[in-house]
Amino acid sequence: MTLPSVLLLSGGVGGAKLALGLDRMLPPGALAMLVNTADDFEHWGLRICPDLDTALYTLGGLVDTEQGWGRAEESWNVLDEMRRRGNDSWFKLGDKDLALHLERTWRLDAGETLTEISADFAARYGLSTRLLPMSDDPVATELETADGLLPFQRYFVQQRCEPAVRAVHYRGLTQAKVSPALLQLLVANSLRAIIIAPSNPVLSIAPILAVPGLRPLLRAAQIPIIAVSPLIGGRAVKGPTSKLMTELGMSSSVQGIASFYAEFVDAFVIDRQDERSAAELAVPIALTDTLMLTLEDRVRVAEAALSLAQRLSTSDYRRSV
Amino acid sequence: MTLPSVLLLSGGVGGAKLALGLDRMLPPGALAMLVNTADDFEHWGLRICPDLDTALYTLGGLVDTEQGWGRAEESWNVLDEMRRRGNDSWFKLGDKDLALHLERTWRLDAGETLTEISADFAARYGLSTRLLPMSDDPVATELETADGLLPFQRYFVQQRCEPAVRAVHYRGLTQAKVSPALLQLLVANSLRAIIIAPSNPVLSIAPILAVPGLRPLLRAAQIPIIAVSPLIGGRAVKGPTSKLMTELGMSSSVQGIASFYAEFVDAFVIDRQDERSAAELAVPIALTDTLMLTLEDRVRVAEAALSLAQRLSTSDYRRSV
Repeated sequence: MTLPSVLLLSGGVGGAKLALGLDRMLPPGALAMLVNTADDFEHWGLRICPDLDTALYTLGGLVDTEQGWGRAEESWNVLDEMRRRGNDSWFKLGDKDLALHLERTWRLDAGETLTEISADFAARYGLSTRLLPMSDDPVATELETADGLLPFQRYFVQQRCEPAVRAVHYRGLTQAKVSPALLQLLVANSLRAIIIAPSNPVLSIAPILAVPGLRPLLRAAQIPIIAVSPLIGGRAVKGPTSKLMTELGMSSSVQGIASFYAEFVDAFVIDRQDERSAAELAVPIALTDTLMLTLEDRVRVAEAALSLAQRLSTSDYRRSV
Repeated sequence: MTLPSVLLLSGGVGGAKLALGLDRMLPPGALAMLVNTADDFEHWGLRICPDLDTALYTLGGLVDTEQGWGRAEESWNVLDEMRRRGNDSWFKLGDKDLALHLERTWRLDAGETLTEISADFAARYGLSTRLLPMSDDPVATELETADGLLPFQRYFVQQRCEPAVRAVHYRGLTQAKVSPALLQLLVANSLRAIIIAPSNPVLSIAPILAVPGLRPLLRAAQIPIIAVSPLIGGRAVKGPTSKLMTELGMSSSVQGIASFYAEFVDAFVIDRQDERSAAELAVPIALTDTLMLTLEDRVRVAEAALSLAQRLSTSDYRRSV
């Protein structure tokens, strides 16, 4: 297997879709994903890593393609019994999914790292893409809302992102260390491009970029950094991206995305519907249809991002580090 | 609810059957069970307490009556997935059952005691019988066999009790403290009889009696102590009792049982098939059919034990403490 040439920074569902496109475009082993773990949490005493698992299930061909997360042909017998017992049942853990959370939890308790466990899970599901948690240290997103401080999954799943958000905190992040597998990868010097998935910039990408030391390390690689805009016509396809950006005083537009990533990203893949607003950007862009419903869509967006990276590599582009 | 007047020392399946008989004979609240926890173990990262759960499910009317343990109408989706993932699947944990183990584990991790959690589970399943773990401190039975040292469940479930046993160890037992709920019960001074269930004397009852301080405390209550023999015609109905007693140099007979319990038990309930051997015993006995297939059987054995205790209480019986 080749060494990874592309690093994808990613959250859950949207990022996993792009990962699948890249996985199909690139030779086996050429893709590594650095995955957000700031929405990890403990539930029923188990360590749940929603973004890692969505990536794992999507790339392993096990995902429930209807909802974009969780296992296909899933059953809910433990959940039903939890409900009957009067336990928390707002977070839907399926029976198949549960087996994975159990194993991860007992292995973490036995002293293995999340990086080691994720690599083993990826290998067992036949992934050629490397799955790297952004850090082995626990980070927990909390949202300051009109209803008080909410842990991420309470906000996201239980409250369906309804409370207005005033600020976002990533508890534990300032103490978190960069993924040791990422350090190894950077030392190998095989990466040729970094792509930021069309995930929620605030909830999924910001915590990855805020792991202490990560930005300077990625910049030192001196390779193009491309972001795929999560907006189509100024709005997110799904999820609270637009609402959240607005609540936090950002503009829900490609300008808003561009200025959020300004210090870090070299070029953007932008949806055709945002062509007019994109014209105002001072950085290179590529336009395509970014809605990813089919595998062809995913490959198209992946291709646009890879071509843009290629263009930057061969042009007179010079990163201002 | 009345204070408990009868304390049953019990292992799993056989003990739970007698408990059900006693539960039906006595007024609500009059029965307390002191349950073996030396066959508890950790599996899939969860704390499993087979004897407590068998008692809980049996008294709560939830048990799989066919096999005598586990939940009725159980499903095995998590187990199937564990098998597919290549994880240990020799210990059969059903989906409904799993919900209980998950809750127990996260509550133990949060600092609750096994006593508190068991009392809450019993209340939620509507039990009037009190379920007391023999101790809140972990004890682990290990068997020295021809195949080496085996943890209890590996011997009992995975190896089907096949390896010849040379010695039995109860790891942690000398440091274990007596159940705090039992101490409370003894202080209340409501107990009128102690009954030892027809459980495996070596694997289920011996560890309870070996909790430091337990025997003197129970003796100090100055009430009759009755054991129901686990043998019928010199053999155990089920499980490794006879085989194990023989391997450990004891006689698999009512004499063997009587001498095992000699220092502690005042009188025995013995199966009619063992009438002849029982005639040689120097202690009071009651004869009945001890095979407990139906609820009537359970009530009959319960009645025999309670009558024998009553007889001892009202006779000129004096315990030699």
